[in-house]
Amino acid sequence: MAAARVTVVEELSREECLELLQYNSRVGFGRLGFTTDGRPMILPVNYLLEETFLVFCTAPGTKLSSAAGAPVAFEVDGVQSPYRSGWSVVIQGVARAVTDPEEVEQLRRGPLPSWANPGPQRWVRVSMDEISGRRIPG
Amino acid sequence: MAAARVTVVEELSREECLELLQYNSRVGFGRLGFTTDGRPMILPVNYLLEETFLVFCTAPGTKLSSAAGAPVAFEVDGVQSPYRSGWSVVIQGVARAVTDPEEVEQLRRGPLPSWANPGPQRWVRVSMDEISGRRIPG
Repeated sequence: MAAARVTVVEELSREECLELLQYNSRVGFGRLGFTTDGRPMILPVNYLLEETFLVFCTAPGTKLSSAAGAPVAFEVDGVQSPYRSGWSVVIQGVARAVTDPEEVEQLRRGPLPSWANPGPQRWVRVSMDEISGRRIPG
Repeated sequence: MAAARVTVVEELSREECLELLQYNSRVGFGRLGFTTDGRPMILPVNYLLEETFLVFCTAPGTKLSSAAGAPVAFEVDGVQSPYRSGWSVVIQGVARAVTDPEEVEQLRRGPLPSWANPGPQRWVRVSMDEISGRRIPG
């Protein structure tokens, strides 16, 4: 009789989640979940990790910029598809536009990689109110 | 004088989005965006592509299973990080639990890869009401 294949989903600690967020910064990219026209939406976004915030950059008037001022989720993951294993980390917080001109200038000169924004920029900070993560070991 | 590096975000056609969804089925994995406790949430999920629906499988009582009956977003992407290029496709639709016992049995015997659900299963279909996608060429 073949043994049943039991897959375990491990919950990650806050420390493990923060480590993975930091690790994933090399990729510099995650996914923002927000509500637009009353419906959930997910868009990829480049990000920078500050001590207690995430920062991303968008263009005024875009769907993504409409997330500022509202609760959002932010997800990063790493998957080893052939092994059906991987991890994911999700932050839930509130997105707020950065309006202080000095802070904007600092961010503009900072290291945030932007793959898609050559034009006017709108900087947004996301508070890290809740962090959760899970791993499916290989 | 160095030429300014201009990054272009291309909108994808519906046909291109469907092709990428089909292509990504090999990976068998995407991200579901939904609202829980009034806040956006994103969780990774294995999926199967039907003609006009996505199907995923979860366990009763989980956060993910609370998405059934509500509007959701579903995202897949492919990123070439060193080249700062990639694509993403997002579906917006409504998630509905599959309740017909015959359909459940068919799905249970079907090819949906489940990395994380050895226990009781709840099958959920997502209508593909809106499909959008974008590409940042390398």
